Amino acid sequence: MKHLLPNRAQLERHLPILQWGKSYDRETLTSDAVAAVIVTIMLIPQSLAYALLAGLPAQMGLYASILPLVAYAIFGTSRALAVGPVAVVSLMTAASVGNMALQGTAEYALAAVTLAFLSGLILLVLGIFRLGFLANFLSHPVIAGFITASGVLIATSQLKHIFGIDAHGHNLIQLIGSLLENLSTTNFITLFIGLGTVGFLFWVRKGLKPLLLSTGMQPRLADILAKAGPVGAVVVTTLAVWLFNLENHGVKIVGDVPRGLPPLTAPSFDLEIWGQLFVAAVLISIIGFVESVSVAQTLAAKKRQRIVPDQELVGLGASNIAAALSGGYPVTGGFARSVVNFDAGAQTPAAGAFTAIGIALAALLLTPLLFFLPKATLAATIIVAVLSLVDFSILTKTWGYSRVDFAAVFATIFLTLTFGVEVGVSTGVALSILMFLYKTSRPHIAEVGLVPGTQHFRNIKRHRVETHPEVLTIRIDESLYFANARFLEDYIYDRVVCEQPLKHVVLMCSAVNEIDMSALESLEEINHRLDGMGIKLHLSEVKGPVMDKLKRSHFLGDLTGQVFLAQYDAAVALTPKSVVPPAA
Amino acid sequence: MKHLLPNRAQLERHLPILQWGKSYDRETLTSDAVAAVIVTIMLIPQSLAYALLAGLPAQMGLYASILPLVAYAIFGTSRALAVGPVAVVSLMTAASVGNMALQGTAEYALAAVTLAFLSGLILLVLGIFRLGFLANFLSHPVIAGFITASGVLIATSQLKHIFGIDAHGHNLIQLIGSLLENLSTTNFITLFIGLGTVGFLFWVRKGLKPLLLSTGMQPRLADILAKAGPVGAVVVTTLAVWLFNLENHGVKIVGDVPRGLPPLTAPSFDLEIWGQLFVAAVLISIIGFVESVSVAQTLAAKKRQRIVPDQELVGLGASNIAAALSGGYPVTGGFARSVVNFDAGAQTPAAGAFTAIGIALAALLLTPLLFFLPKATLAATIIVAVLSLVDFSILTKTWGYSRVDFAAVFATIFLTLTFGVEVGVSTGVALSILMFLYKTSRPHIAEVGLVPGTQHFRNIKRHRVETHPEVLTIRIDESLYFANARFLEDYIYDRVVCEQPLKHVVLMCSAVNEIDMSALESLEEINHRLDGMGIKLHLSEVKGPVMDKLKRSHFLGDLTGQVFLAQYDAAVALTPKSVVPPAA
Repeated sequence: MKHLLPNRAQLERHLPILQWGKSYDRETLTSDAVAAVIVTIMLIPQSLAYALLAGLPAQMGLYASILPLVAYAIFGTSRALAVGPVAVVSLMTAASVGNMALQGTAEYALAAVTLAFLSGLILLVLGIFRLGFLANFLSHPVIAGFITASGVLIATSQLKHIFGIDAHGHNLIQLIGSLLENLSTTNFITLFIGLGTVGFLFWVRKGLKPLLLSTGMQPRLADILAKAGPVGAVVVTTLAVWLFNLENHGVKIVGDVPRGLPPLTAPSFDLEIWGQLFVAAVLISIIGFVESVSVAQTLAAKKRQRIVPDQELVGLGASNIAAALSGGYPVTGGFARSVVNFDAGAQTPAAGAFTAIGIALAALLLTPLLFFLPKATLAATIIVAVLSLVDFSILTKTWGYSRVDFAAVFATIFLTLTFGVEVGVSTGVALSILMFLYKTSRPHIAEVGLVPGTQHFRNIKRHRVETHPEVLTIRIDESLYFANARFLEDYIYDRVVCEQPLKHVVLMCSAVNEIDMSALESLEEINHRLDGMGIKLHLSEVKGPVMDKLKRSHFLGDLTGQVFLAQYDAAVALTPKSVVPPAA
Repeated sequence: MKHLLPNRAQLERHLPILQWGKSYDRETLTSDAVAAVIVTIMLIPQSLAYALLAGLPAQMGLYASILPLVAYAIFGTSRALAVGPVAVVSLMTAASVGNMALQGTAEYALAAVTLAFLSGLILLVLGIFRLGFLANFLSHPVIAGFITASGVLIATSQLKHIFGIDAHGHNLIQLIGSLLENLSTTNFITLFIGLGTVGFLFWVRKGLKPLLLSTGMQPRLADILAKAGPVGAVVVTTLAVWLFNLENHGVKIVGDVPRGLPPLTAPSFDLEIWGQLFVAAVLISIIGFVESVSVAQTLAAKKRQRIVPDQELVGLGASNIAAALSGGYPVTGGFARSVVNFDAGAQTPAAGAFTAIGIALAALLLTPLLFFLPKATLAATIIVAVLSLVDFSILTKTWGYSRVDFAAVFATIFLTLTFGVEVGVSTGVALSILMFLYKTSRPHIAEVGLVPGTQHFRNIKRHRVETHPEVLTIRIDESLYFANARFLEDYIYDRVVCEQPLKHVVLMCSAVNEIDMSALESLEEINHRLDGMGIKLHLSEVKGPVMDKLKRSHFLGDLTGQVFLAQYDAAVALTPKSVVPPAA
């Protein structure tokens, strides 16, 4: 029964911690610990802020930044990925959970926990069945458009905290309408804190580090201080509220944040709730996975390391289930935090585990200090973070390169802004697939001739080539399958009905990567129909795998003409008095 | 404002009757009239039977065979298509309307009328926006599987009438279960009539015409008599019931069929009902259109005539709207009837209009005679008609040729039988598209070398070819797009990490018909990564349309290597000491 026990290599594949854990030494520990300190400083205000964005109590952001990080450290394959709450997933959580319960209720929090559980399950299942390739169906432009539109939505959704007013909505129109409606109730102290923090944080991003370096400070310390900008803003504005009793002047504060480690929680197992959350869970899983894997792969490539996408699904799945069991909400690998983690020198996923310790300490010790933290400060943190995601240049880039890609991006951005995240990203994906199918259903077909002095055949419309009046050579630039089988038939019938004394039609199949059953039936029909007109049908440059399939059918037996290895052979055989000399 | 008035050619395109009507003469009239007589004889029992199959009163079958035929004669482009109630569409009507109301109620009939209206609208919209190509996404094997499975379902659903028992269900398991449960209540007189009619009709199909011909009868008359078999069965069994009062012995009869021309009816405009019927209407439209166009095209090809698919959509759309306004239910072009119409000599769509007159006369004059017609006779007509549609050979054909096509057919048949028509055909279509996408997301990639003595490059695994250790030439057998961009990256990175002293990687793009934005980004990344390893990236045989797009991007400027017109040029340029002499 030996083969039932997994061997060491198999175990290491499924538990990457066993692999990097073997060679863990003091030097790696130091690097990881330093990175963890920096990421912790960055993550404390972010986790509180993203919980707020998701419509959840602030502590759930902290909880989502403890056990999930440990789970990823055990199961994940990226050495630099920083898992935790991220802006886009928080927004998607708010959008889906917001349909089911009112913010602030126990049902709302339970739905968020259940969403994390469902997402975790979906990711695990995808990982176990090696379905990571599904994420490939999200095209780069659709993702870029979605992230940009989400950034705009998120920033807009936080303006209410900056103005100290009420506003709701899951799309830009609702949000802006709601903001304008309530603008007269602006709390100017809140606005002052909010705008001040936004300005301060932008300055920290751009100006603080150069300033510190110019004072002769050590680069690493300057870096840590620059990263601590948001923490500084939190401390200063919290103190300001406390000192001047601003909470009595309408400045909304975070209030009581329970002190202590994450509680043990259980998701709901109500099938109706699962049904309502399922689509959102699928989208969150896929979007989270794609974002996470793409940053992980970028960072791994820099050190010639490898990411195993299917194992990443398991790692992120375990993280989300850990989030669900410890009072958190959906998490994934964050872009900005992972880059910071990498730059700060993280060597192994242990850096994530150390970050978890840092956040746990914060949850144990710092929460009472957060009572007077103004929500405007957290909103400012979010706005500054997400505006770096907003990049409309994808529109101009795709417009210049491909109208199809442009249409997909434009639809994604437009629909995300006007109908919300779920409609936006689903339509973007569906549209890219449909447009790909549409394109392949109307393939480019070129009539080709011989480039003089070579054995090479090109489009008669683009190159000066030699042709023969009795031979029509058609290059089909697409695999032949059910969606374009009829198109090919129509093209050939239309083309052969002419005054030209055609005797041979050659289909040059160098670009035909597949001939399915529908297309085979069409080819049989074409062969039969041309036969009736006294024209022979030939094939050339049929690829190995396609030829293997054709040999299993009756087609080659019924074919009136021949199958030529090279198009040049066809030209030589069919035009004996050809101007072209045979190959040297 | 002259251009606002459509000219004659435009009018003729949208009203094909103007075209064939011009040259209509006495000879054509005679041919059409003879065909109409034969089709009418065939259609009377069929229209009653299919209405029964759809769960509707018998007269609705007649009504669906009058105005819809006239509408098609005006707007359709096929000269032989016989429009009217058909088996598969009747089954689909029963499946969808059966979910909404009880058979025999006014709501049930109204839903069927509304379904015809909705299908008509959908067909019209598809026709007006020239979306006929959408039907291409139904692959031949999926259609074949669906028709076969529907035939089995339909035949099974009629067994209850043959046995004279009650049975219900929309899938094979429910139907068989229900039949077995009630088998003990079999009415043996009904069974005798049913089995007798089935046997008689099979004999008429195979044996009657040869028998009549052997008596020296004129072939055309023999043909008409053979086609009149079902009418004969109707007459004989109706007389038998009337003479022996069999209705008092448990033989179920058609009963009172209102006498007269079709009533003017209006569909429901209740949006909730539209919502419930929408999916079914889409499926009925598409399936009906595909079946209809394929038979129309087959028949047109025999006379070198042309079918205009987008105008066919308009023709069928008008037919269905006519059905909805005159107490009918969804119609389309029937396979068997159209072949009969063609063989009988129909020259123009006027044959359909004459058939409509025949059916109208039947509705006016014959309906009282149908009172004692046993339902078992109609069921026998249906069974014999649909069993000719059942052809499981598509399973063995696809199994031998392509496992992917086989999977789609098998799923379609299996799901249609076990879950009903809607689930079956939707899953079949979705599956063929998904499998196509999956295949293109993991393209065939071949390393190629030069076939000695030629300028032709083939797979090193299949052909004896020449290669050079410093040059890796990869032929990608698929368009590059978002779903396979990552796959190509992984393939190349895995391949170049080897002991081979590689200096050049050439991507041979003869089979690359498209490079979208995602793939462009991947190529940029590959170029960048190979550059870091001291390897140059080259392209060869890039097609015109692809090159046009690349020229609009930065890629060609950043490319470390060159773009070669022919792969042979690349080989000559990159391997100066090549064993290959330059082309003659």
